[in-house]
Amino acid sequence: MEHGPASVPAALPYYVAFSQLLGLTVVAVTGAWLGLYRGGIAWESSLQFNVHPLCMVIGMIFLQGDALLVYRVFRREAKRTTKILHGLLHVFAFIIALVGLVAVFDYHKKKGYADLYSLHSWCGILVFVLYFVQWLVGFSFFLFPGASFSLRSRYRPQHIFFGATIFLFSVGTALLGLKEALLFKLGTKYSTFEPEGVLANVLGLLLVCFGVVVLYILAQADWKRPSQAEEQALSMDFKTLTEGDSPSPQ
Amino acid sequence: MEHGPASVPAALPYYVAFSQLLGLTVVAVTGAWLGLYRGGIAWESSLQFNVHPLCMVIGMIFLQGDALLVYRVFRREAKRTTKILHGLLHVFAFIIALVGLVAVFDYHKKKGYADLYSLHSWCGILVFVLYFVQWLVGFSFFLFPGASFSLRSRYRPQHIFFGATIFLFSVGTALLGLKEALLFKLGTKYSTFEPEGVLANVLGLLLVCFGVVVLYILAQADWKRPSQAEEQALSMDFKTLTEGDSPSPQ
Repeated sequence: MEHGPASVPAALPYYVAFSQLLGLTVVAVTGAWLGLYRGGIAWESSLQFNVHPLCMVIGMIFLQGDALLVYRVFRREAKRTTKILHGLLHVFAFIIALVGLVAVFDYHKKKGYADLYSLHSWCGILVFVLYFVQWLVGFSFFLFPGASFSLRSRYRPQHIFFGATIFLFSVGTALLGLKEALLFKLGTKYSTFEPEGVLANVLGLLLVCFGVVVLYILAQADWKRPSQAEEQALSMDFKTLTEGDSPSPQ
Repeated sequence: MEHGPASVPAALPYYVAFSQLLGLTVVAVTGAWLGLYRGGIAWESSLQFNVHPLCMVIGMIFLQGDALLVYRVFRREAKRTTKILHGLLHVFAFIIALVGLVAVFDYHKKKGYADLYSLHSWCGILVFVLYFVQWLVGFSFFLFPGASFSLRSRYRPQHIFFGATIFLFSVGTALLGLKEALLFKLGTKYSTFEPEGVLANVLGLLLVCFGVVVLYILAQADWKRPSQAEEQALSMDFKTLTEGDSPSPQ
């Protein structure tokens, strides 16, 4: 089961394709839910609330998940290009999520609702702040030129662990938000299998599936991006050269 | 940062102790929540519902999490002893969770409430079935004497991945249940920072922290249980012997 540095593991593209199908389905079903049962989306009206779930799902779920997969998908490009794409996708995710956050705070303000009382909101603020901190720390270690090779190597496993954790925490927070939106509107009608309740439950399971598939792709040790000539050259001081596998840049 | 096969990584005991402190706090806060705001626990009355959250937290969260940590904690014992402990902890977790499930279905039946309509219940049934299947498959591969060494080696990473995933899914399902219990009882009073709401939010964050700490311990590659003489002998056919590190059984 050895792969040369430029080869793509046979099953990986199918898993990535499946993850994208799931991710797009999650976004589409969120849109369908808001369109069919919540009156659609607008900024200037009580429909402003609906901007929140859509933006959070696109930013904190779909784009954040895809940003994690960048190193599995772009295997032959220069490491720096891949890094920049990873960082940029997170920036897009962050900006879209920020719009979603502004929408819900603005909506609460106009309606005179209290802020930050629910478990969903506590988890949401926590995960959003952690996401921002993770981005800043990641940027200063991996893209800013200052950090040494050994510092990067020591921080990398932490960055990966907390990246995956923040992503899963985002999925959990989305489930809490979905549940909150359902219970506030449907109340006891939820128990009569209202179409909206069933659709939202399906959306919840799709969110879980997207999280699991992204995590599965990240967890496969032999699906990791192979290190390339440029990095191998850099790491020569730190590794013995007994492995022999000389990389062939394409 | 190399460890001999019998040494314990310096930081591991502190992380394990912290995980246990968190796990016990989660159980205690669940008990406090049910005692202070829900009238306590009984089987024969409407307090029967309260058996559900307590049993699920003890079984599917605390004991399941601890079962995952067994291989990190028991590093010098025979592999078979550790395996049996891992399997037994999951059996206890399963039985306690089953009591919790019977409690809620029985409560619903007595009250005439509908079953299995909410996202919490869908996730709960799914994760409980997956937990049972994972146990059966794990038992037949690792404890039942039939499976070959190479079959075990190929299944092991899948078992670990799905074990961690089922545990995290259990934590997410608990959060959904907590949120459901809060919204059904508090309704809009949730937004006035009722003491029960705040306590339950804290419980939710503690559940998340327990999940993250267990996952962190599992994710550290150099905290894994070192393989021992008995297994190394078994694996001689499959590994080259160039690594040199001969194990010293204690």
